[in-house]
Amino acid sequence: MAASENSSRDLGEFSKQINLDSVRDALIRQEDSIIFSLIERAQHPYNAPAYGNLAYGTSLVEFFVKEAEALHAKAGRYHNPEEVPFFPEDLPLSLIPPYIFPPVLHPAASSVNISKKIWDVYFKELLPLFTSNGDDGKYAPTLASDLICLQALSRRIHYGKFVAEVKFRDAPQDYSTHIHTKDKDALMKMLTFERVEEMVKKRVEKKAKVFGQQVTIEDKCGEVDYKVDPSVVSHMYGEWIMPLTKLVEVEYLLRRLD
Amino acid sequence: MAASENSSRDLGEFSKQINLDSVRDALIRQEDSIIFSLIERAQHPYNAPAYGNLAYGTSLVEFFVKEAEALHAKAGRYHNPEEVPFFPEDLPLSLIPPYIFPPVLHPAASSVNISKKIWDVYFKELLPLFTSNGDDGKYAPTLASDLICLQALSRRIHYGKFVAEVKFRDAPQDYSTHIHTKDKDALMKMLTFERVEEMVKKRVEKKAKVFGQQVTIEDKCGEVDYKVDPSVVSHMYGEWIMPLTKLVEVEYLLRRLD
Repeated sequence: MAASENSSRDLGEFSKQINLDSVRDALIRQEDSIIFSLIERAQHPYNAPAYGNLAYGTSLVEFFVKEAEALHAKAGRYHNPEEVPFFPEDLPLSLIPPYIFPPVLHPAASSVNISKKIWDVYFKELLPLFTSNGDDGKYAPTLASDLICLQALSRRIHYGKFVAEVKFRDAPQDYSTHIHTKDKDALMKMLTFERVEEMVKKRVEKKAKVFGQQVTIEDKCGEVDYKVDPSVVSHMYGEWIMPLTKLVEVEYLLRRLD
Repeated sequence: MAASENSSRDLGEFSKQINLDSVRDALIRQEDSIIFSLIERAQHPYNAPAYGNLAYGTSLVEFFVKEAEALHAKAGRYHNPEEVPFFPEDLPLSLIPPYIFPPVLHPAASSVNISKKIWDVYFKELLPLFTSNGDDGKYAPTLASDLICLQALSRRIHYGKFVAEVKFRDAPQDYSTHIHTKDKDALMKMLTFERVEEMVKKRVEKKAKVFGQQVTIEDKCGEVDYKVDPSVVSHMYGEWIMPLTKLVEVEYLLRRLD
């Protein structure tokens, strides 16, 4: 196995390479993955039986995601600080040697985890917005698609830790004042750029149009039928995805000086 | 659980609704899923450690796909005749009541399975064509992406059973002659429409351009950098995906009168 070949790299140098541009590029690429995952989930209707309870109490979806995360843990998923499990309890050890990711995050703050909130938002708020009523019987592909949506959203939202770290490094004095006084509102204000947020909403709406169109050899005119309503994607970003990312940023900063 | 609510439907009526148009629409929608899955896999480099052997002999990827298929089986994936596992041995039972899919396929022919060939083609031929050299340490997301590519390709290729069933129903006499004499070449010739295949290749190339572009708020001019080379996707369809689908069609037809 070549999995720990990277241990000889200069990880300290590497961790300095992260900056606002690289963080922004990562978030932009993650938009594509999120929109692909929504489009794939939307090819199935809501499929209520996928969310019913099993004989022994837990729901099928909870069972499915727990088991999938255990499998991913065996393949080393959670060595990567970008990946946060929904069910961190009793995850099995990796079967392969750990790859050493560059230490970017402040250790005391790196464990911020709002997975439970993301889980609730996904199933209660988002899923009903982009799936139709009905049951096509394809519960395993439905759950597999939910898993991919959940992981893509969680990665994006928890990436707020990297955003916050980079912003903190750029202006440690300005942030420290509010961190010392635990002033969440002031921190949230420092992290909020309405113009940027409007631009993100516009971009994801455009991406949903591009990726969700029916592509034919001849260019079509007139009515276009998108696989996921582009304005819904923009709304999701404005109402949940960006606010939850900023919540992660604030929680991270509050522990940044611990 | 409402999983078997559908058992009272007139499944016989339902199975008659499948026709060349509905089969073609399904194949066209599956192109989108295949291209999304390739684009997602291509964001990681080849990642050799994901394919190394574990201490006890099997490779990590084989372990990962076997375990994932076992989990999907528990959620009823293989009740659906469109879904064919790569490792059908010892799959666990579903934890939920079976959804009754309309009986479309001829029972004696429905078990055609070329998964081993698809596995080999994917890892030996396709994967090196659309991934770069390198190792980003993200082995679990890499394997999860491989699984999605494999499942999407397998569903498309094994959908040849439905294609063949519909074509057989349209012209049973013409096919029966060659089925009785087991004339594979004549059957392959009857199933081959070069004009249609060229059109599919053009369409998937266009889809790879649309879905694989970097979408920005401003429309760009000049050089476009695609996430997966569109000509590679067209080549994959022409060299492997369509020929393997036709192989499934021929194998299905050979058993259609059993």
